[in-house]
Amino acid sequence: MAEQAQAALSVEDELIRRFFHWPEVGGEGVELGVGDDAAVVRLAGPMAIATDTMVADVHLPQSAPARAWGHRALAVNLSDLAAMGATPRWFLLALTLPERDDAWLEDFSIGMRELAASTGCALIGGDTTRGPLAVTVTVAGSLPEGGGLRRGAASIGDGIFVTGTPGAAARGLDHFKAGRITHVDTESYLFPQPRLAAGRDLEGLASSAIDLSDGLTLDLARLLAGTGFGAELDASALTSAGLDPASMRSGDDYELLFTLPGQALADLLARASRWDHALHRIGLVSEAGGIRIDGSETVAVGWDHFGGAA
Amino acid sequence: MAEQAQAALSVEDELIRRFFHWPEVGGEGVELGVGDDAAVVRLAGPMAIATDTMVADVHLPQSAPARAWGHRALAVNLSDLAAMGATPRWFLLALTLPERDDAWLEDFSIGMRELAASTGCALIGGDTTRGPLAVTVTVAGSLPEGGGLRRGAASIGDGIFVTGTPGAAARGLDHFKAGRITHVDTESYLFPQPRLAAGRDLEGLASSAIDLSDGLTLDLARLLAGTGFGAELDASALTSAGLDPASMRSGDDYELLFTLPGQALADLLARASRWDHALHRIGLVSEAGGIRIDGSETVAVGWDHFGGAA
Repeated sequence: MAEQAQAALSVEDELIRRFFHWPEVGGEGVELGVGDDAAVVRLAGPMAIATDTMVADVHLPQSAPARAWGHRALAVNLSDLAAMGATPRWFLLALTLPERDDAWLEDFSIGMRELAASTGCALIGGDTTRGPLAVTVTVAGSLPEGGGLRRGAASIGDGIFVTGTPGAAARGLDHFKAGRITHVDTESYLFPQPRLAAGRDLEGLASSAIDLSDGLTLDLARLLAGTGFGAELDASALTSAGLDPASMRSGDDYELLFTLPGQALADLLARASRWDHALHRIGLVSEAGGIRIDGSETVAVGWDHFGGAA
Repeated sequence: MAEQAQAALSVEDELIRRFFHWPEVGGEGVELGVGDDAAVVRLAGPMAIATDTMVADVHLPQSAPARAWGHRALAVNLSDLAAMGATPRWFLLALTLPERDDAWLEDFSIGMRELAASTGCALIGGDTTRGPLAVTVTVAGSLPEGGGLRRGAASIGDGIFVTGTPGAAARGLDHFKAGRITHVDTESYLFPQPRLAAGRDLEGLASSAIDLSDGLTLDLARLLAGTGFGAELDASALTSAGLDPASMRSGDDYELLFTLPGQALADLLARASRWDHALHRIGLVSEAGGIRIDGSETVAVGWDHFGGAA
């Protein structure tokens, strides 16, 4: 009853077949992809796995372009893999939509598919359902045996570094709200580029790493939690990196924040010369607790998903 | 700055530490659990992985007990693993809440934690965010080398079987809406029991399997899609199984629906004698297309996430 069964299947099955069948992103180790109760995959070594949700008007305006919804939902998850030094392998997509909208789905799938293809990350399964617009992606990547980056392992005197354009996304959101959707910062906000190559290059060099999702001060506090150490940031370096030391306003950057022992600096700079984005040294890990800018104590400020700005 | 950093971290970090730290469910192969950018796990053989979302008032009433929200969000995902014949290993939780509600979170975490402990499935990571109530779980399990159950591989003459109490969940939802929250069918609806032991027992016996989430006829059409075959169901057997052949009303059952060659029947019955739930033979895989009940053609009817009853 092949033809009859196909005709009888649900709208959900049809949407999946129409918009989420991407044979060009095959994925090594994928034994069974979209279309059964579960996908079947295989990965010999250690695997990094993370999940992140984007809720309409909490993480991204519902009115943001569908292509940005598709790109960003995958990008923020790939950013977690970057912060682990992992190489993306495959992902699952749980998509909740208020109603069927084929034009939206087409653009959403293009945004996600392009990033999946450029990062070699195969879509192997998911769930499509009705409800308030939200996207949860779960992504997995491979790690070198015995390797990978962690939080909480910085030493006193390590340099503190950040990649790319921290602060751009926060400005981009303002531009977007003001209708300036083609501004370069708006592009950074809507289409963050996960720093996967940088993450892999930090392997064996950085003492700890995290991705910047909730703001530099909050994520720096998370990076150093458990070490017993603090941070001494340099106001002029922050300004050079594009951050205002007075407000430290940032969030949604999906840049990498990491610490590095001094003796690894030359190697880092050699590797960073191949990156297509900037690298900024913004301070040092210090014995004194807390986060200081030019010697004045600041407090961890960032986006708190329950408390707003914390 | 250990103490200071702890104090400065976000409400989200605190909620995770308070409600989602379950050291008793350790999980073999978990090298790094909750608390970094990603979890790190390792699994030598093939892995089954699935994701499912529960949206308030679409999949489960927002007013359902928080314990049921926690149990069911994990159970429906474990049911996908059961349908693959997989053994649960670990899961990730993406939880979206309208507001912080510690009493709700406590009950939610208990419901989920009990099922995680009883199935040996470790919580290794997740995301907690603000928005309309929804839960997305991603679950992974191990499969025997070269084994596991699939859809689309039934042969003509195979028996068609269903486990447990199909139809009970649909009746249970009615009871719940009518305020009869202690009815046995309401229990089936709120606290489905994933048929993990049955799924593993089908390994090497069943020719194909699926879990019943969207109704027997729609899921049967999915199970047979691609085989070119149809199904001949027996009205009296459906009645015995608790289904009304006139309406075939079911959904949210999370029972297993599978096909089995005749020569495997004795082995199946021997294994099924250990199960703590029923097993029903409801029909045969037939050469004729479509799904027939006592010779009369029916149409695939089930829950369609976009079209309602399809």
